[in-house]
Amino acid sequence: MTPAPIRILGLDPGLRRTGWGVIVVEGARLSHVAHGVIAPKDSLPFAERLLCLFDAITEVVALHAPDEAAVEETFMNNNAQSALKLGHARAMALLVPARAGLPVAEYAAKVVKKAVVGTGGADKDQVGFMIARLLPLAGKTTEDAADALAVAIAHAHARKARNLGAPQVSEASRLLRKAS
Amino acid sequence: MTPAPIRILGLDPGLRRTGWGVIVVEGARLSHVAHGVIAPKDSLPFAERLLCLFDAITEVVALHAPDEAAVEETFMNNNAQSALKLGHARAMALLVPARAGLPVAEYAAKVVKKAVVGTGGADKDQVGFMIARLLPLAGKTTEDAADALAVAIAHAHARKARNLGAPQVSEASRLLRKAS
Repeated sequence: MTPAPIRILGLDPGLRRTGWGVIVVEGARLSHVAHGVIAPKDSLPFAERLLCLFDAITEVVALHAPDEAAVEETFMNNNAQSALKLGHARAMALLVPARAGLPVAEYAAKVVKKAVVGTGGADKDQVGFMIARLLPLAGKTTEDAADALAVAIAHAHARKARNLGAPQVSEASRLLRKAS
Repeated sequence: MTPAPIRILGLDPGLRRTGWGVIVVEGARLSHVAHGVIAPKDSLPFAERLLCLFDAITEVVALHAPDEAAVEETFMNNNAQSALKLGHARAMALLVPARAGLPVAEYAAKVVKKAVVGTGGADKDQVGFMIARLLPLAGKTTEDAADALAVAIAHAHARKARNLGAPQVSEASRLLRKAS
């Protein structure tokens, strides 16, 4: 029996641009639902840039009704000031799905690349190329949207490896929490 | 004519403990309304710790109906990993008042200490001592709540220096945005 389809929201958070992508997993089959990029105006006060991310992610969740969410552990350099800023944006990507009652998993960039390209050291072009191959209906994607779709795919692989079937929020969420 | 009273919410954000305090400013007079500390359980998944902060700050805003909010630019060490975590928590302190339509100002720890104690190099004990002097009705406060009340006081001073009177959201918010 094929397990029921699962809708996964992937998020690649950033203050200037947060990529998002929704896919459906049905057994071994992946299909593209939608993707996009949220780019709050630079000129807005900081708190309102966060509010813009919050509102836009809330709209994506309402519109595409994902069952689970996955967020990239975005690349970290050693600059504490930029890490602090990124943390603010990333919090929106974690908060909104959690508010909607979805289990939220987190994946390191290396794990995402390995899931999509086969190697953790893959570059952006390779990720974009593989997204086009794995999700042909996605059409042209920007880097941020491609990364978000890649996180969703990484989550699809990880949940398959954990033998998760249809959404069973309590069980799935327990396992995902352990993994994150 | 004494300007209308203004209610200010001060927030000292942290993932383990977020301090909050509400004061009323009426001309030169400050008075204490309420304060507290939000401490999400360590054992919760990361996204749910953020949700706990979000919900608790939302409740504080609903209960105490502040006119304006002020958030501390918490001390930054050079550890990018802890800056990233702090950023997530701090985002809740900025997001919730912005969602409620309040102007949100940000103040460096040094500015807060200078406003309350008179010197930017003051230690925690001095801040606690001055909070007890300035807001006698606050009673005993923990460090995090005292810091939050101190941010609110710093904002009261800053807005007085900018000659802001009664809440005039558009004007106040324009000025505060410039300052933050």
